[in-house]
This record gives sequence, structure tokens and C-alpha cells, in this order.
Amino acid sequence: MDRIQEMIQTHPRGQQTNLDRFVDCIHACYECVQVCGMCADACLGEEMVKELTRCIRLNLDCADVCLATGQILSRQTEPEWLMSRLQVEACARACDLCAVECEQHARMHEHCRVCAEACRRCQQACEQLLQTLAANKI
Amino acid sequence: MDRIQEMIQTHPRGQQTNLDRFVDCIHACYECVQVCGMCADACLGEEMVKELTRCIRLNLDCADVCLATGQILSRQTEPEWLMSRLQVEACARACDLCAVECEQHARMHEHCRVCAEACRRCQQACEQLLQTLAANKI
Amino acid sequence: MDRIQEMIQTHPRGQQTNLDRFVDCIHACYECVQVCGMCADACLGEEMVKELTRCIRLNLDCADVCLATGQILSRQTEPEWLMSRLQVEACARACDLCAVECEQHARMHEHCRVCAEACRRCQQACEQLLQTLAANKI
Amino acid sequence: MDRIQEMIQTHPRGQQTNLDRFVDCIHACYECVQVCGMCADACLGEEMVKELTRCIRLNLDCADVCLATGQILSRQTEPEWLMSRLQVEACARACDLCAVECEQHARMHEHCRVCAEACRRCQQACEQLLQTLAANKI
Repeated sequence: MDRIQEMIQTHPRGQQTNLDRFVDCIHACYECVQVCGMCADACLGEEMVKELTRCIRLNLDCADVCLATGQILSRQTEPEWLMSRLQVEACARACDLCAVECEQHARMHEHCRVCAEACRRCQQACEQLLQTLAANKI
Repeated sequence: MDRIQEMIQTHPRGQQTNLDRFVDCIHACYECVQVCGMCADACLGEEMVKELTRCIRLNLDCADVCLATGQILSRQTEPEWLMSRLQVEACARACDLCAVECEQHARMHEHCRVCAEACRRCQQACEQLLQTLAANKI
Repeated sequence: MDRIQEMIQTHPRGQQTNLDRFVDCIHACYECVQVCGMCADACLGEEMVKELTRCIRLNLDCADVCLATGQILSRQTEPEWLMSRLQVEACARACDLCAVECEQHARMHEHCRVCAEACRRCQQACEQLLQTLAANKI
Repeated sequence: MDRIQEMIQTHPRGQQTNLDRFVDCIHACYECVQVCGMCADACLGEEMVKELTRCIRLNLDCADVCLATGQILSRQTEPEWLMSRLQVEACARACDLCAVECEQHARMHEHCRVCAEACRRCQQACEQLLQTLAANKI
């Protein structure tokens, strides 16, 4: 069990259900923050940076949105689901956009391939969390 | 003219229309980041902090969402409007929630009164930007 | 009086002295966050982006450091001055580095000229705050 | 090999030496961002929140400083070591302060125990990176 999971489980007002979905989405969001930030920097260091400006822009956006989403999902005191849902929807969209762009450079740049994977993982974790919330009428 | 406005106007790929709406929303988002962060801290310093935990939580969420929104709206290279719109919608909602909470403490705590104002201003700026984007079919 | 000043003054445990220095530094930090983020994006949109990669890197660093510094200085509950001072020192350095770089592009790119100004303003506000803290043996 | 490590290694201008120290410090910083944010929220949800206000404040500071540090260390294009070192020093200090506080609540609150561990790990990773940089006269 990692520290994020421990923190979720030792929260005084922690919910009892669907913890895995939350932990998975929090992990995916923060991984995406880091990987997108590193992909922006790697693209910036490429000789052909001119052709990667759209990728850098979407990397930066995706990192910002994933950070806000990860932070909000990490909080269990007095949650507000409607707002969280809207943020998770924006996050799934940001990840999809960034993944589509990175996938186009994946053959040429390994960092774009890895970044596309992290974005797809985060997009899926967001979509699964949204389904879980909907199924539980939260 | 302030520096944010100057930066918007000297961008090499800057759009020509609706600049005021964008500048206004960027200003409101970053003001809300600061004021919500300061309201969380002021609430934390109150004797009656126990009754302000929901306020602190929503302050922190609102600050995080406003920061992501301000950062995304500040970028003009290769914009992606659908994603920006989703983020601005989440932001308007976060500001509304935080304002409703702060308004309940506004008589007792001046910092909550000021914070509610900043949240309402940001909510309105977000809603006006969404209307402008819709009117321009962006 | 703006909202940031109001928030500082309505804090339940707010200090009474040197408020101007703090407010000035907080304002300068958050302005620098925004302007540096916008300069990175404007550089990214330039035809000659290849020659601006160092500028973009330093813009992003400076924005990150200024954000952390602004957030910490905005809190008045249970302050820890030694840590705050170290962060303000890192901030002054980040602003200086970014200003030096932007000044080299200031004639060619207006956004770099404005960004250099914001960085210099923030560097000075940080240095003045450090002097004030030292003079008060804080 | 995890994605952060892959990103570091696929960077076009990546350095060849001391990668482990960097990856370790980046991991520790981002873990600390998350755990400190979650500890602030868990403290906020405790009945005895009034006695945890200093802990919450230091959690929030530590999360902000660790985020800036993790972001800067994640970038390998055009690094500026003097500034990075100052930021890592501020980070080690923030982690130490937060750990000292959390350790005092570790017996009573599991989340503070886990958070103290994450802070100590990050402090050590920062100090080891500083030693490595010094040994290599970087």
C-alpha cells in the first residue's frame, strides 16, 4: 500500500466506498501532471521545436488541469460532487486532446509516446470515476 | 494599461476580438486564486475555525480551479476552445459554491465578505466569457 | 484599497508592521506568475521559437517559483520566517535570471520587454522584503 | 521502470550522470505535494482541528514549495543550477518544518504519521541531491 492510499484510508471523514476508483484517478492525475510537464520540456529541447509548439501548449494545459483535478479529488472533507464532476470532465477532455497530439509524434519522439500513455491512462481513470459517480447517483 | 493587457496585446498570434472579456476573466481568476488562498488562511486563524472547515475546503478548491482556468486562458498559441469552455464552466461553479459559503460568514468575518465578492466577480467574468464564446460560435 | 490589501488587513492574526512590504511583494509575485506564463506562451508562438527556448524554460521556472512564494507570503497564520526567507531568496534569483534573459530579447519582442519589467519589479520587491525582515531581526 | 524515469531518459538534452538522484528527488517532491495536501485536508476534518492549525499551515506551505521544486527539477532544457539549488534548499527546510510538526501528532493521527514520513523522505532526497551537486561542483 502506498502513501496516497494510506492517506485516503486514514482520513477522519473518509468515505468507505469506491476508494479504488478515487485512488486510481488521483494517481493518474498527478502522474499526468509530471509527465506532461516533462514532455513540454523535452519538446522544448528538440531541434524541431517549431513543429512541436502545439504539443507544448497542450502539455502545459493538461498539466494545469490535471493538477487542479488531483488536488480536488484528494480532499475528502466536505466534498462537492457537482463541481468535482465538472472538473473531472474538463480533465478527461484535456487528457484526450493532449494524447491525440502526442500520439502523432510518438514514433519520432519517445517522450511523446510515454506522455500519450500517461494522458490516456488519466483520461480513462477520469471516465471510470465519472461512471462510478453516476452509478452511485453522486 | 496594465502588464497583463500588454502581454495579451503583444502576443504574436493574438486574436483581435473580445480581448476585454479575456483580460477581465484572467484578472478575475488570478484575483480569486489569491483571495481564496488568503481566506482559507484567515479562517484557519480564527478562534472558531471548527465552524469554518467547509469554507476552508471550498476556498482551497476554488483557488486550485481558478489557477488552472487563469493559466489556460492566458495562453493564445494553439487554443482549444472546447476544453477551455469546460474548464471555465467548472470555474464558474467553483466560484459560486465558494461565494455561497463565504456569504454566510460575511457579517461575522470581513475576510469572508471580501472573498465572496472576489468569487462573485470571477463567476460573472466566467459566465460572460462563456456567453461571448457562444455568441461567436467559438 | 484593493482586495489583497483588504484580505491582509482583515486577518485575525495579522501582523501590524511592514504590511506594505508584504502586500507589495505578494502583488509582484502573482503579477510575475501571470506575465511569465504569458511570455512563455508568446515565445512559443513566435516564428523564431528555436532561439527562445532558454527564455521559455526560465519563464516557466520563474512562474513556478513566484507562485510558491506568493502563496507562502499570503499566509499569516503560524508563519515560519526562516523558510519564507529561503523561498524569497530563491524567488529573487529566479526573477533575476529570467529578467536577464528577457532583456536580451526586449528590443525584438515586446512581450519579453514587459516580462523583464515584471521580473525586475518582483526581484526588487523580494530584496526589499528580505531587507525589512533582516532589519526587524525576523 | 516508471514513466517519470522514462521521461528523464528520453529527453533530447538529458544529462547522463546522477539520474537516480534526480528521479528520486522528483518522485519525493511530488509525493510530498500530494501527501501534504491530503494531510491538510484530513486535519481539517478532525474534531480537534483547532489544535491542528499550525499543522495545516505547514502542510500547505510544504505542498507549494515541493511542487515548485519538483517542476523545476523535472526540466532538463537549459538548467540553471544556482537557482535550482536555492529552491531545493528551501524545499528541504519546508519538509523539515512540516515533519517536525506532523511528528508531534503522529501517535494520535495516522495521517500525520504518514505525512511526516513523506516529508522526511523528501527532505533527505533534497539533501542528497544538494550533496551530489556540490560533489560534482555543479
